Amino acid sequence: MNTANAESFRNVTIVGAGVIGMSWAALCLAHGSEVTISDPAPTTESQVRAGLADIAPTLEELGMRTDDLTARLRFEADLAAAVAHADVVQENGPERLEIKHRMWATIEGNAPAHALFATSTSGLPASEIATVLKQPERLIVGHPFNPPHLVPLVEIVPGRLTSEETVEQARAFYSALGKKPQVLHKEVPGFVANRLQAAFFRECVHLVAEGVVTEQELDELVTSSIGPRWAVAGPFQSFHLGGGSGGFAHFLSHLAPAMEQSWKFLGSPTFDEATVKLLSEQAEAYLGDRPIEELATQRDQAQIALMRALGELPPAPAR
Amino acid sequence: MNTANAESFRNVTIVGAGVIGMSWAALCLAHGSEVTISDPAPTTESQVRAGLADIAPTLEELGMRTDDLTARLRFEADLAAAVAHADVVQENGPERLEIKHRMWATIEGNAPAHALFATSTSGLPASEIATVLKQPERLIVGHPFNPPHLVPLVEIVPGRLTSEETVEQARAFYSALGKKPQVLHKEVPGFVANRLQAAFFRECVHLVAEGVVTEQELDELVTSSIGPRWAVAGPFQSFHLGGGSGGFAHFLSHLAPAMEQSWKFLGSPTFDEATVKLLSEQAEAYLGDRPIEELATQRDQAQIALMRALGELPPAPAR
Repeated sequence: MNTANAESFRNVTIVGAGVIGMSWAALCLAHGSEVTISDPAPTTESQVRAGLADIAPTLEELGMRTDDLTARLRFEADLAAAVAHADVVQENGPERLEIKHRMWATIEGNAPAHALFATSTSGLPASEIATVLKQPERLIVGHPFNPPHLVPLVEIVPGRLTSEETVEQARAFYSALGKKPQVLHKEVPGFVANRLQAAFFRECVHLVAEGVVTEQELDELVTSSIGPRWAVAGPFQSFHLGGGSGGFAHFLSHLAPAMEQSWKFLGSPTFDEATVKLLSEQAEAYLGDRPIEELATQRDQAQIALMRALGELPPAPAR
Repeated sequence: MNTANAESFRNVTIVGAGVIGMSWAALCLAHGSEVTISDPAPTTESQVRAGLADIAPTLEELGMRTDDLTARLRFEADLAAAVAHADVVQENGPERLEIKHRMWATIEGNAPAHALFATSTSGLPASEIATVLKQPERLIVGHPFNPPHLVPLVEIVPGRLTSEETVEQARAFYSALGKKPQVLHKEVPGFVANRLQAAFFRECVHLVAEGVVTEQELDELVTSSIGPRWAVAGPFQSFHLGGGSGGFAHFLSHLAPAMEQSWKFLGSPTFDEATVKLLSEQAEAYLGDRPIEELATQRDQAQIALMRALGELPPAPAR
């Protein structure tokens, strides 16, 4: 943690030790927090220790110390006990409302009064999860872009009753972890990043299903054009610059009408049997012969190199 | 040019000296071609010389020599004369079919029999442009992602009658320029890259119009998540890795149904008066106080740094 925030977020409880929970735990540990992991599965401890060992090299490349990563880690299957001293609870449980309700009622009943309540959910709005809480103003969505120990974005999505204080607490927490939080102004299904990905991928599926390109060709096309562009300038700035000296005003007056026309041509595919078969076969031919771990490591190393080149590696934690 | 291809594409005629034509000219000159620029506008020569001076620093950063960039450059307003010795004609004229028809009839009537005929059009299919040609098999779309001297992608889109030989000639030409050509298997409106951008941007406009995020917040969100991801792994590989050890099969069986549901929630905005007003105002507040040239230079330098970090700079031309 940055010195300024170190005290406020010393004790972090991670609820649910799946891929996301593990990644949050690794990041918090690397920033010097005391981390308690709560998951009822009997294999939790061995899985987390193995997972942290897998993540450690990436943290090192990101400039963090990992020699004593597990020194401040403990496991507590009992949720009530696990949150008893928490300054932050980051919940990564199953995406089912009744489970979230049960978890959060227990958390609220046992956590200190000052603790920040955050859920990693990608699908359930804070407003719905918070209906079981006596103090719904304390709960917020802190939705990472997977994996949270690497990708900078965290979408902060307040519910209808979430307080401004909670928003600022969440912003401070994720910023202290070196993340780039974005606070959404409205609670919409899928938040922002997943909606944008879904919109893009819908057309990807359409173009592959129509036989215009293969999956591999489409991926190559994206990584040699749109991807690197949007890594350095978002879509609005890109169209601003695409308009030449006229900027975004030129885009709106000269290019937007044609784009609006093109929206009518875009595909509306479904994941029907024939499409799923085609997509599976192409994925197998394209990616099937390389171990997933190898591909993932290669991608993450490439992303770290990219972030380093752009001067976007988070500052090393002051410990 | 690579030695192997240097002879085949020695004489390049660039038709139309707008932003795209100028960029193609710069790239071809840096690769050692003799370049003839044909544009009827009387200001062509001074504009092109100024434009090449603007582009030269970027070419240098990409590892190309620019000291004698204009030594092999000539101007010939008369189209018939301009193509008389061409090995390649890359046309960047106005996006109107009757103009393209007139140009290509003249080009075919005056160019050598071996010349490759390519059009940079982003909107008109080769099949429609080629209806005026005696040898429609010679014409192909070579659509760059702007600016062609920097972004690797070139979409090669054959028309109904384009020959396989022309496809291979185009692939060889763009590869020799250090580009990453992708040959599409079907001629669809907007080709691939612009359709994908349009699908993505539709949801961007929706989310800004709905007040979920501002333009600036959306850009920051993209550059801190989706952008860097898609710079290093395309969407299919990303969802393959997002499925964990189950890979793309897990994505299809577990996540695709939820994505298909989410497609129903996506927005259908229009560029109506209120939306255009909102988008303009936000763009002005976000980007209005910085000169466009400065933003563009910064973006291009960042992209070169990114490409260098990923080992994706094209090899320096052998001259």
